[in-house]
Amino acid sequence: MTIFDQIVKPTLLLDSGRAVRNIQRMCRKAKDQGVRFRPHFKTHQSAEVGEWFRREGVTAITVSSVDMAEYFANHGWQDITIALPVNIRQIEAIRALAGRVHLELLVESPESAAYLDHELAGRGDVWMKIDSGLGRTGLVWNESEPISSLAQQIKQSKKLNLRGILTHAGHTYQAKTPEEVRRLFAESVQRMLQVKDGLQAVGAGMVEVSVGDTPGCSLSERFGAVDEVRPGNFVFYDTEQYSLGACTAEDIAVALACPVVAKHSERGEAVVYGGAIHLSKDWMPGGGPIRHGLVALPAGDGWGNPLAGAYVDRLSQEHGVVHLEGEDLDRLRIGDLICVLPVHSCLTVQVMGEYLTLEGKRVRTMNK
Amino acid sequence: MTIFDQIVKPTLLLDSGRAVRNIQRMCRKAKDQGVRFRPHFKTHQSAEVGEWFRREGVTAITVSSVDMAEYFANHGWQDITIALPVNIRQIEAIRALAGRVHLELLVESPESAAYLDHELAGRGDVWMKIDSGLGRTGLVWNESEPISSLAQQIKQSKKLNLRGILTHAGHTYQAKTPEEVRRLFAESVQRMLQVKDGLQAVGAGMVEVSVGDTPGCSLSERFGAVDEVRPGNFVFYDTEQYSLGACTAEDIAVALACPVVAKHSERGEAVVYGGAIHLSKDWMPGGGPIRHGLVALPAGDGWGNPLAGAYVDRLSQEHGVVHLEGEDLDRLRIGDLICVLPVHSCLTVQVMGEYLTLEGKRVRTMNK
Repeated sequence: MTIFDQIVKPTLLLDSGRAVRNIQRMCRKAKDQGVRFRPHFKTHQSAEVGEWFRREGVTAITVSSVDMAEYFANHGWQDITIALPVNIRQIEAIRALAGRVHLELLVESPESAAYLDHELAGRGDVWMKIDSGLGRTGLVWNESEPISSLAQQIKQSKKLNLRGILTHAGHTYQAKTPEEVRRLFAESVQRMLQVKDGLQAVGAGMVEVSVGDTPGCSLSERFGAVDEVRPGNFVFYDTEQYSLGACTAEDIAVALACPVVAKHSERGEAVVYGGAIHLSKDWMPGGGPIRHGLVALPAGDGWGNPLAGAYVDRLSQEHGVVHLEGEDLDRLRIGDLICVLPVHSCLTVQVMGEYLTLEGKRVRTMNK
Repeated sequence: MTIFDQIVKPTLLLDSGRAVRNIQRMCRKAKDQGVRFRPHFKTHQSAEVGEWFRREGVTAITVSSVDMAEYFANHGWQDITIALPVNIRQIEAIRALAGRVHLELLVESPESAAYLDHELAGRGDVWMKIDSGLGRTGLVWNESEPISSLAQQIKQSKKLNLRGILTHAGHTYQAKTPEEVRRLFAESVQRMLQVKDGLQAVGAGMVEVSVGDTPGCSLSERFGAVDEVRPGNFVFYDTEQYSLGACTAEDIAVALACPVVAKHSERGEAVVYGGAIHLSKDWMPGGGPIRHGLVALPAGDGWGNPLAGAYVDRLSQEHGVVHLEGEDLDRLRIGDLICVLPVHSCLTVQVMGEYLTLEGKRVRTMNK
C-alpha cells in the first residue's frame, strides 16, 4: 500500500519534509544576514503550514488580501502586512483587523493615503509601494517628486506612520538565467536604497526597505542592506522556479496526482483527469516547450524526478494533455497516476484548496 | 443605491435575465429541429441556475466530473452524461450513482470498456468518444478499424449498452471568423455521420450522434442530422465567444466587478483588485490584444457595453492590470469598480464559486 492507492481523482500532494527544509533554508539565510523574514503566505494559504514557519521562529507574515489577513489573524498571527495597494472599499474589515492585530498597509497614491488618514480608527503603519522595475503597481523608483510628496503627506497625517518602502521585483520571473535573476534582484535593491537615501535627503526621516521575490531571494547569496524580505513561493517552489534555476527538482514540495483516462500513442500523448480547475491555467513564460508543467511518476510514497522530455502541453477545464516520450508512454496504463509539478504552485494551491501529505493527512487551506 | 454599493471586493455579477434568454434561445433552437438538448452544466455548476433550464423543459444534462454528477443528482437531475473519458479510479462512486440516476459514460479505449464490463453492478449506457478534429480525446473519426472494434467489444459485453457516438468540436474556438466556425461545426457533424454509417455497415446497429460546442451551436442555424446537442458556455457567454461572433455584448451574462486600487496614467493603466484567483488565468487564443478580457463600467444595476480599446492586459494572483483609453482612465477614481467580462466564463465561475445577481441575491455553485 502506498499513498497513491487511496487517490481516485486529482489530488494535490504535499511533501512536508521538503517544505520544512525550504522554510528552514530561507529562515537561516535571513537570520544570518540580520534581515527580518516576513514570508508571504499567499502561496500555501494554510494555518497548518503556517505553524511550520512558526516553529522556525517566524512571527511576521505577508498576505495578499484582507480575507487572508483575517484568516491568519484567526489562527494567531499578530503582525501582518497586506501586500496589495489598499482596497479602500474594505475599510470596515481593515478597521476591525487593525483593532486586533498589528496591521501594515500599502499605499501608492495620495488618494488612498488621504482616505486612510480620514477613515482609520487609530494610528496605522503604512509602507509606500515602489515600482523597482516590474511595472505593475507602485511609485516609479526614479521619479522622486511623487515619492517625496507622498512621504510628506504621510508624515503630516495624524494617523499614518511611514514604516518604509516596499517593492516586489517580480520581473526576475522573466529572467533567462540565474545570473540575470541575481542582477535584477541586486538592481532592485540598489534602486530601493536610492529611494531611501532620497527620502532622507528631503527630511522624510529614516525608513525601512522591504523586498522579496522567490527567484531573487533563492539565488542571491546576500540580500543587501534591506530590512525585510518577503518571498512566498519558496515554501513549495514549482516548475517555473526550477526552470529559472531557483530550486532543484528535489526542492519542489507539491505535485498534482492525476489519473490517466486516455492514451494516444500516435500523438505521443496521454490525457489525464486534471485540468485548468486543478492546476490553474498558468503557463510557462517565454513560450518554451514545457507550457503547463513538468511531469513525474509515483515512486514509493512520493514522486520521482521529472521525466525527461515530458510536460503538460494543453489544459482544458478538466482535461490535461501530457506529452510523454516513447517508453514512458508505452508503460502507462489507463487508471495509472502521473504527478504534475505545477507551473505556479500558488495558483494550483488556490484552486485545489487542500493538500494530501505523503503521510496521508488532509491539510486544508483558507479556501476549503 | 445600486447593486454596486454593496460590493467591497471582487464579485461575480450574474445578469439572470440575460442567462434565461440565452437558455430559452438555445432550447428553442434544439426543439425546432427535434434534437435532444442535453446542456453542459460545467459552465454554471449551480443547482439554482439548473432550475432555470428545468423551467424550459430540460431534463437531461451533461457534466464533466463524477463529483458534478453527484451534485446535480442530489438536486433532482435523473439523466446525466459524464463527458470525460471514464476515470476508472472512481468506479465506486460511479456504481453508487448508476444505482440512483440514469448515468451515461464515455469510453474510448478497449481497456476502459473491459473494466466497466467487469466492474459495473448492472447494465450501463456508454457513448464512444470520437475525435472529430480537436485532437484531445476520442477515437479518430476516420480510423474505422479501432472504432468498429470497440463497438463490437461493447456490443458483445454483458453490461454495456452502446448508446451512440459523441464528440466535442472544440477546435471551433480557434476559428478566425463566424464562417469558419460554421464550416468546422458542419464538417464535424459530417464526420460523425460518416462514423455512424460505418458502424451500421459493419453490423454494429443504429447509434445516436451527440455533438455540441457553444460556438458551433450558436452560429449554425441547423445542427444537421444529429440526435443530441450539448453546448454549455452559451448560458453566460464571455469575451472569447463575443470575439468569435458567437454572441453579442448584450448576451454576456456574467462580469467580475473589481475595485480599482491604483492608477498609472503614464502607462494608460489602472490596477484592480481582481486577479488570476478571481478570473482564472485563461487568455484569448491567437495572441490578440484583448488578452484577459474586455472591460465595462457599472451602469445602473448592471454594466454597460465593453469600453472601446479597453482590456485586461496582465493578471497576477490578486492583481489585474487594465488598459484603458484616455478619458475612461481619467474619469476613474481609486475605489471605483470596473466590470471585467471574463475570457472564459466557465473557469471564472469555477474559481469564484458564487454569483451575485443584479437583484442582490447570492447564488452558490457546487464549489461554495
